Amino acid sequence: MKTQPDDLLPIGLRDRLPAAAANASAVEQAALGVMHSHGYDRVRPPLMEFETSLAGRMDGVSTRRMVRFTDPASLRTIALRSDMTPQVGRIAATAMAEAPRPLRVCYAGDVARLAADQLSPERQSLQIGAELVGSDGAAAAGEIVAVAIAALEAGGAQGISVDFTLPDLVDILSAKALPLEAGQVDAVRRELDTKDAGGLRDAGGADYLPLLYSSGPFEEAIDKLAAIDAGGALASRIEGLRQIAARVEGHARVTLDPTERHGFEYQTWFGFTLYAEGVRGALGRGGTYRIGGTDEAASGVSLYVDGLIDSLPEAVNGKVLFLPLSHDAMRAEALRGEGWRTVAAVSDQDDATSLGASHVLQGGAPVAL
Amino acid sequence: MKTQPDDLLPIGLRDRLPAAAANASAVEQAALGVMHSHGYDRVRPPLMEFETSLAGRMDGVSTRRMVRFTDPASLRTIALRSDMTPQVGRIAATAMAEAPRPLRVCYAGDVARLAADQLSPERQSLQIGAELVGSDGAAAAGEIVAVAIAALEAGGAQGISVDFTLPDLVDILSAKALPLEAGQVDAVRRELDTKDAGGLRDAGGADYLPLLYSSGPFEEAIDKLAAIDAGGALASRIEGLRQIAARVEGHARVTLDPTERHGFEYQTWFGFTLYAEGVRGALGRGGTYRIGGTDEAASGVSLYVDGLIDSLPEAVNGKVLFLPLSHDAMRAEALRGEGWRTVAAVSDQDDATSLGASHVLQGGAPVAL
Repeated sequence: MKTQPDDLLPIGLRDRLPAAAANASAVEQAALGVMHSHGYDRVRPPLMEFETSLAGRMDGVSTRRMVRFTDPASLRTIALRSDMTPQVGRIAATAMAEAPRPLRVCYAGDVARLAADQLSPERQSLQIGAELVGSDGAAAAGEIVAVAIAALEAGGAQGISVDFTLPDLVDILSAKALPLEAGQVDAVRRELDTKDAGGLRDAGGADYLPLLYSSGPFEEAIDKLAAIDAGGALASRIEGLRQIAARVEGHARVTLDPTERHGFEYQTWFGFTLYAEGVRGALGRGGTYRIGGTDEAASGVSLYVDGLIDSLPEAVNGKVLFLPLSHDAMRAEALRGEGWRTVAAVSDQDDATSLGASHVLQGGAPVAL
Repeated sequence: MKTQPDDLLPIGLRDRLPAAAANASAVEQAALGVMHSHGYDRVRPPLMEFETSLAGRMDGVSTRRMVRFTDPASLRTIALRSDMTPQVGRIAATAMAEAPRPLRVCYAGDVARLAADQLSPERQSLQIGAELVGSDGAAAAGEIVAVAIAALEAGGAQGISVDFTLPDLVDILSAKALPLEAGQVDAVRRELDTKDAGGLRDAGGADYLPLLYSSGPFEEAIDKLAAIDAGGALASRIEGLRQIAARVEGHARVTLDPTERHGFEYQTWFGFTLYAEGVRGALGRGGTYRIGGTDEAASGVSLYVDGLIDSLPEAVNGKVLFLPLSHDAMRAEALRGEGWRTVAAVSDQDDATSLGASHVLQGGAPVAL
C-alpha cells in the first residue's frame, strides 16, 4: 500500500485516529454531560448558514476568514460557521424567542475557517459551549464560569485557572470617576492594552496608571482595584467579580487582569479566559454580552478543547473478547449486553492477539489470553 | 423580540432544537455504542479536504455537488465532505495502512453538499458508518449488516428491513452462463434497472427475464435465483447471500432485489439497503467494495439517520431539581453527582415550574412540586 500525495490533508486540518478520537469523544461527552446536569439543553445548528446571519448577531465576528460561497438556490452568500455562538444567539432570538427565561442551551460541533492565522495554524476546531440567555448578572455569569470549569474538569483538565477582566472598564471610569476628553479614550485604551505606563501618561491617562498594577492573583488585585475606585463607579462591578470568584473557589485559581480587552469584543461588563496546566493557550473564553438584533442580555462560554484533547494520555484498552469463526452469535450478543467488547473472526487467519483481544470465547465463556 | 429575514436558514438546512437535538444525540451515541461493542474504533476525519482526495477513493463519488473553494495556502481545491466513507478509506490506506487486518473503524459526523437534488432537499445529513477493512467475504459482509441493524435498533428504529442486491450480477452471468455480445451488456443492465420485460427482450436479454422475478422475500427469491443459475456461475454469490441472511434472522425482514444497482456504483459483489417502519426512504446503504488506490477489499455501511431521528417521539423530560437563589452549592453538586439534573435561579424572579422543574431543593432535600 502506498501513500499518494493526494492523501495529505490541507495544512491546518487533521484526522483524529482511534486513540485521539476516543479522547475527543470522551471530552465532548463529559463536557456536554456536565452542561446537561446544570440544566443546559443541547441544540444542533447547521454547519453553514447565511453570512449575514453569522455576522449580524455579534460585534467582532468578521466573515473575512470564513469559508464562503454563493448559494445556488438563493444566490446569497453562505458561510461555514467559524463560531457557533452567533448561531445559538439566532436560535434564542427566533425559534426559542418564546421559551421561558433564563434559557439554558449548550452545543458542541466543529467550526472551520478559510485561512489560519499566525497564532493558531488550525483551520478546524471542536467548539463546545453553554449560553444562559436572559441574564447577565453576577449569578448568571458565575454559573457560566462554574459550569465551564466543571466541564473542563470532567474532560480531564488539571490545574485550571481563570482570568477575569472588565471589558467596559475604561468606559465606566472615563464617564464618571476619571474623566477623559473624548479624543483621549481610545488612546488610553490602547496604552492599557499594551500595558505601557509611559505611553499611558503621554496619552493623558496618568490617572489610569494604578490599573496596570491591579492585576494578578484575584484577592490582592481586586483589593487594589477597589482602592482606585474612589468615586464608587466600579462598586457593582467589583462586587460582581467577588461573587463570581467565590463561586469557583476550590475549583480553579482565579486571577484578575481588569484592562484585558483582546478577545472580548462583544462582551459587556464581564469577561473571562480559561487555562489548564499542560495545555498551551486558552481553553475557553466567555462572559456577559447582548444578543445582536434583540439586545437580550446573556452570559456564555465557548470552550476550544483541541489543546486539552491533545494533552490527555492515551486511553488504556479495556477488555476485548475474540470470537472465533462459527462462534455462538446469541452467546456473543449476551456477552456484549453484559458490557463485553467483542471482535469476531471473519476468516480462519484472524489472530486474536494481533487484533488486540484480551480474552477468547471458549465453550461459551471468555478465557483470558 | 423580532425575527429578521436574515434569521431564516438557507433551504435544505435546519436547526435541531432541544427535543430533536436530544433524539439526534441519542441515536448517534446508541449507534456508535453498538459499533464500539463490536470492536469498531471511531476515527474523526476533518470537515473538508482536497477535492482529489475525496473523489479519488471511490467510483461514483462526484465532486459536482460538493461545496468547493480554493485553498489560499496551497491554491488547490478543497471540498467539504459530502460522504465520510472516502475519508475512512484514505485513513485505512495511509495512516492506518500498517494496523492489523481486518481493521474495524467507525465514524459519525455531518456531511454537506452545495445543492439539493429532487429526491432529497436536505443539504446537510448526519452520517454514521462502520467499515471492516481487509475482507469482503460473506462473514465480513454479514457482520456489517448485523452491526448496522443493531445500531439502528439501538437508535430506536422499528420494523427494520434489509434489501440485498448483487451489483455485479450481469457481469458474472454475461461472462459465463448467459453470454451477451459486448454491445448488449449495457442495454441489458439498463432494462433490468427499469424492470422492463419487453425492453429486456428487445435488447437481446431474453435469457435474463427470470431475474426480474427473482425478487421479493429472501427465501423465495433466492430459490428462484438459484434455479436460474444453471451453470453454477452464481453459486458462491448465492451461498454468501444465504449466509448473510442467516446472520440477521430475527432482527430484520430480508428481501432480495438482485438486479438493483442504483446507489451501488462502487460496491463489488454484495450491496444492501436498510429501511425501517415509519421512516421514509432508505436509512442506510452498504456492501462490499475495494478501496481506491490500494484496491484493498472492504465491507461497510453508511447510515443516514435524519429520517429516523425525525420519526422518534419526543423524549420525556426527566426529573429536574430547581435550586433557589443562595442554595447550598456543595449540596447541589452532591445531588448532581447522584444523577439529579439541576436548574439554578439566577434572580428572584426565576420560576421553578416555568423552567420545567419537577422538584425544588428545600432544606437540603429535593421536594416534589
